[in-house]
Amino acid sequence: MEIVNNIDSIRQKLACSRRQGKSIGLVPTMGFLHEGHLSLVRRAAKENDIVVVSIFVNPTQFGPQEDFESYPRDLERDALLAEEAGANFIFYPTVGEMYPQKYETFVEVTELTKELCGRSRPGHFRGVTTVVTKLFNIILPDKAYFGQKDAQQAIVIQQMVRDLNQNVEICVCPIIREKDGLAMSSRNTYLTPEEREQSTVLSASLEMAQQMIENGERDAERIRKAMEELILSKDKARIDYVEIVSAHNLKPVQVLSGKCLIALAVKFGATRLIDNIMVTVAQ
Amino acid sequence: MEIVNNIDSIRQKLACSRRQGKSIGLVPTMGFLHEGHLSLVRRAAKENDIVVVSIFVNPTQFGPQEDFESYPRDLERDALLAEEAGANFIFYPTVGEMYPQKYETFVEVTELTKELCGRSRPGHFRGVTTVVTKLFNIILPDKAYFGQKDAQQAIVIQQMVRDLNQNVEICVCPIIREKDGLAMSSRNTYLTPEEREQSTVLSASLEMAQQMIENGERDAERIRKAMEELILSKDKARIDYVEIVSAHNLKPVQVLSGKCLIALAVKFGATRLIDNIMVTVAQ
Repeated sequence: MEIVNNIDSIRQKLACSRRQGKSIGLVPTMGFLHEGHLSLVRRAAKENDIVVVSIFVNPTQFGPQEDFESYPRDLERDALLAEEAGANFIFYPTVGEMYPQKYETFVEVTELTKELCGRSRPGHFRGVTTVVTKLFNIILPDKAYFGQKDAQQAIVIQQMVRDLNQNVEICVCPIIREKDGLAMSSRNTYLTPEEREQSTVLSASLEMAQQMIENGERDAERIRKAMEELILSKDKARIDYVEIVSAHNLKPVQVLSGKCLIALAVKFGATRLIDNIMVTVAQ
Repeated sequence: MEIVNNIDSIRQKLACSRRQGKSIGLVPTMGFLHEGHLSLVRRAAKENDIVVVSIFVNPTQFGPQEDFESYPRDLERDALLAEEAGANFIFYPTVGEMYPQKYETFVEVTELTKELCGRSRPGHFRGVTTVVTKLFNIILPDKAYFGQKDAQQAIVIQQMVRDLNQNVEICVCPIIREKDGLAMSSRNTYLTPEEREQSTVLSASLEMAQQMIENGERDAERIRKAMEELILSKDKARIDYVEIVSAHNLKPVQVLSGKCLIALAVKFGATRLIDNIMVTVAQ
């Protein structure tokens, strides 16, 4: 496995593989890899001849009050884990390499980004779609792998790929959880032991919602309220949102029907955690 | 030469050429081809194995009060001219093919587009950069050809290609003029005979500016004023702007130095014409 910092060199190396007819899979990450990321890398390795893991803590997707500076970083450990999982290249550019002087071009998905996380993180998705477009143009992957954990991100990126006719297949992979249910996230390392313990309420609330739906509940507000109540039973939890939306347009539904996304964002101390499940209700 | 309406089919046809190692040149146009366009097609034919001329009157780059509906169209004539000039394909998609239901993704260059035409045509360049990105992703050209006539457009697109790491070389080709100096444009057909006669003042004002600079004038305001005076000597002319800007950031200069763009937009009746010259003044 090779770590490449420079756009021109990764292009050259991949052009060589491409000329040999090799397929390329891209796993875009912000590093500090966990089992969630590694499940993407393993799947990419199964489905492609060459796997590129990009590691780039992308400043344009962080708000001014957010954790860009403190976001955890550990390239050495990431390199070992990525190689073990089947990566051939880590693309690890500097901020200056990705956003040179006088940078001023952005890709924006305008509607889907107004919902859910878009409301509390203005500009976040513009940063994501911009950097992902850049990575697609640099790596030219056949397939790119994203986690269902960032459900809205995956939907926004699929919209962008469709709208801009980008030449890549988007593969969305299941959420990987800790044994106690907490969705894996690099940000989990921020949690104090107490917050960590309380944080299991998030997956528990989603399981409860699923159970309610299996028991025949179709009223979104009743499910939502029950989830909020359970979450707020933990004294460290501050809810950003708990929403039940159509998986197609991310707009809230009143009565569950078709493919719905149940998504939440909750802060424990300064740490904002997200989680979700996708449910399909016969219409 | 072949006319292709459909994104999937043009992709398939070009993938075939690409596999044979053939280079592809793209000339994006809105059709109603004139010698300006044809000079781009001829240059593309010289420099590439395959030339694609796209003809698409792009609704997203027209303002609500602009001439999208009335923009001149003549596919049959365009096809003959493009083939003669060396085109292998005309890509001629419908609006629905390029902007399907629930389209919502846009590419925006934020700073350069605030100047010159960006001021009187809000949203115009967002439409241009979006459709050009789509065309790049569909055609995957090695080189794409744009006219210096649309000087700001060329500069904005070069910025976008750099910022988003798009895999295409941008070639900017000289303005082609009528015998009396008027820069060729599909919109010239809108002019009444009287407006057409008066419109030669635009190129004349640029020539005068060039002459003043050759005679040692370096004060931008004096040149600008003289140009405005000459243009307004024609009673049908209404100035949108006459500006002298740095070719790097499109910001107005006070003293000419380095590479400067002298650009103007003037309305004759309902017809908005643009023209420009690039001058380089020893620093």
